[in-house]
Amino acid sequence: MKLYFSPLACSLATRIALYEAGAEASFVEVDPKTKRTEEGADFRAVHPLGLVPALEIEGGEILTENAAILQLVAERFPEAGLAPRDPLGRARLQQWLCFIGTELHKAVYVPLLDKAAPAEVKGYALARADARLGWVASRLEGRESLLDRFSVADAYLFAVLNWSSVTPIDLKAWPALRAYQARLRERPSVARAFDEEWARFLREYARRGENLPVGAERAAGS
Amino acid sequence: MKLYFSPLACSLATRIALYEAGAEASFVEVDPKTKRTEEGADFRAVHPLGLVPALEIEGGEILTENAAILQLVAERFPEAGLAPRDPLGRARLQQWLCFIGTELHKAVYVPLLDKAAPAEVKGYALARADARLGWVASRLEGRESLLDRFSVADAYLFAVLNWSSVTPIDLKAWPALRAYQARLRERPSVARAFDEEWARFLREYARRGENLPVGAERAAGS
Repeated sequence: MKLYFSPLACSLATRIALYEAGAEASFVEVDPKTKRTEEGADFRAVHPLGLVPALEIEGGEILTENAAILQLVAERFPEAGLAPRDPLGRARLQQWLCFIGTELHKAVYVPLLDKAAPAEVKGYALARADARLGWVASRLEGRESLLDRFSVADAYLFAVLNWSSVTPIDLKAWPALRAYQARLRERPSVARAFDEEWARFLREYARRGENLPVGAERAAGS
Repeated sequence: MKLYFSPLACSLATRIALYEAGAEASFVEVDPKTKRTEEGADFRAVHPLGLVPALEIEGGEILTENAAILQLVAERFPEAGLAPRDPLGRARLQQWLCFIGTELHKAVYVPLLDKAAPAEVKGYALARADARLGWVASRLEGRESLLDRFSVADAYLFAVLNWSSVTPIDLKAWPALRAYQARLRERPSVARAFDEEWARFLREYARRGENLPVGAERAAGS
């Protein structure tokens, strides 16, 4: 399997899942601005929308969309226990993956992370944050993970919540989320994936001669 | 099973899936503004975020998120063939469900449908429409459905594209999408679900003493 990723993008979740599974995989970095791979190829030839993650599987087939890729990795490495095997458990996993993808990632974080988004767009997104983060926080009260054990939904939620530090969202408002994030940060697969992508994130900004986003340093240590 | 829905909301997709499956189910209408059910109960007691669909299953458990509910219905009624059964087929289904949920439903249509959204927010959403609709349209060129046969992803896509007529999005720009939508509109499960929810949509607006959104009549006949 070959994972197309950008440093600290939501593709971080798939890297975490692959590390959890001990999967053999190669990784191809995509510059989120130029949509060029490390080798200079045009990533839009892989996925016309230019969105990571994209996973190349057998026969050169390309699978896109984070939640789909995460579930395929869980399916291929059942011994890693990254997804429930029973129908209702799978439905609960899908519920959380969809919630994170639609209500948090797309509705709240994408506009807040987009430097080109007008202030009204950021305000509209931010106005949606409290109810949604409060809902996940209530789920995590007294729990270690979204489901009964660590799953690919936790990998996704970690990758998304990690963006908070470069937005006006302060996780201190939800102690359950903050504790969850700190706990996951110590998990070996997460620590390895995060540290590697943080180093690449630094190189990405250096390569473009840009300053890091305000708050990014905090993310590394959080 | 009991489905909480609002007329012509994305919960329409689950109604279509239930009709496809010939499933026994009851339906509870939720007013999207007041969040009250037909019987006057507070829907937020069922789902604190007030989002439909929500599906009550055995033991009174509540499942939320459209893509998760659709996949559970497909799973419970395998003879209806609403989802592929092989791992890669399921991954492709998830890819399309996630794409529709994140890139179309949340990123494009929700802000366009929200009367309270500022013009900048609508403009930001609309600027994302062409690439995303073009991507689905290219998938549907020469195909009857997103996968090899009708699936719950088509039910979801139909429900979302149906909103176009009350937004600045004109599907005429993508003949493959327009033909797909017209074809699905004739499918018995879709025709029945749409006609029933259209009648309820009219009653919803009459009850609130509001005019229909501009373009809504066109949707009924499209």
